[in-house]
Amino acid sequence: MNPKIEKLIKQFAKLPRVGNRAARRIVLDLLQDKTGRIDKLVAALNDANESVCPCPVCGVLTDRTMGTCEYCRDVSRANGMLCLVRDFSDVWTLEKSGVFNGRYHILGGMLSGISGITPDDLNIKNLPQRILDEHINEIIFALPNTVEGKTTQQYIISTLTNTNVRFTELASGVPLGGDLDYIDDGTLSLAFGGRRIL
Amino acid sequence: MNPKIEKLIKQFAKLPRVGNRAARRIVLDLLQDKTGRIDKLVAALNDANESVCPCPVCGVLTDRTMGTCEYCRDVSRANGMLCLVRDFSDVWTLEKSGVFNGRYHILGGMLSGISGITPDDLNIKNLPQRILDEHINEIIFALPNTVEGKTTQQYIISTLTNTNVRFTELASGVPLGGDLDYIDDGTLSLAFGGRRIL
Repeated sequence: MNPKIEKLIKQFAKLPRVGNRAARRIVLDLLQDKTGRIDKLVAALNDANESVCPCPVCGVLTDRTMGTCEYCRDVSRANGMLCLVRDFSDVWTLEKSGVFNGRYHILGGMLSGISGITPDDLNIKNLPQRILDEHINEIIFALPNTVEGKTTQQYIISTLTNTNVRFTELASGVPLGGDLDYIDDGTLSLAFGGRRIL
Repeated sequence: MNPKIEKLIKQFAKLPRVGNRAARRIVLDLLQDKTGRIDKLVAALNDANESVCPCPVCGVLTDRTMGTCEYCRDVSRANGMLCLVRDFSDVWTLEKSGVFNGRYHILGGMLSGISGITPDDLNIKNLPQRILDEHINEIIFALPNTVEGKTTQQYIISTLTNTNVRFTELASGVPLGGDLDYIDDGTLSLAFGGRRIL
């Protein structure tokens, strides 16, 4: 196979949710396309790469020229609530649902011994300062409901014990429309433990 | 959302086998990456785009500077057999299996009324010339086993009736390891029609 095609396939195969077969398909499609899709893709990649950077306060991806992000600039969101999430896609998910209208803080990962992610790798250094500056009274942990998520949550709480902030986490249980047949034992156990009186 | 991020997501979502959610994930991963993956991807895209073109004889993607492709240059493949496939990925699939060692001819699509693909859109103009030049005595149709594939096959045979070439197609039937429970009626019907005496 042509080494330049092979190289391009390898680059695509490194992308999340793209396997070797899909990368091959993508590259063949692009190389056989006559409408200039490669040029458009390259232009969009360069454009986003040059103009987008993480917000220095919360980590949300934003326009480099704007300083802070749209959420940090929005004074109506200064309601004392700070939602901690793993990455930027969680912000999108929450924004789409419209359930939260405070500020965000992106950790950029979860503590993990296996992947070698330590507290130094997480975006947590400026949390105490944010709590003071933005008069935060509630930190909502919207982290993955996994061992890593809970470990990270516990670690962050332990570093913020001398603050007056309330810590909350999202409820665990059976998802809406969830059929018990398809729910794992861990979720069932959490749902039973947290059962509500009717 | 930042319009430049949105634009990039749209470009990725247009790629085959990449939906909106995967495109979002890919773009976030790339933009949050600190190892220069975007630059590497852009370089590989530009490099392949500039140096790769279809072989003027058979349509296989090849190096622009080489003239014809590796299969057309390989004299050991001049064995009188020509395998007609839909696109380049089929060549890879066949090459990986090692079942064929003749030459290829990429049609670039299948005749389709719905998609508006006519004979003019297919790479078939030089087929009579190839048959003469390369002393082809067998044309193997390795096209998709679909209505479009069979229509295309019939059309091509009808345009080559005044040649002395033998036309063959891949056998239809139950795939190796195939469980009858999971095989559709059409395949079962073909498998029964083509049953072999033991």
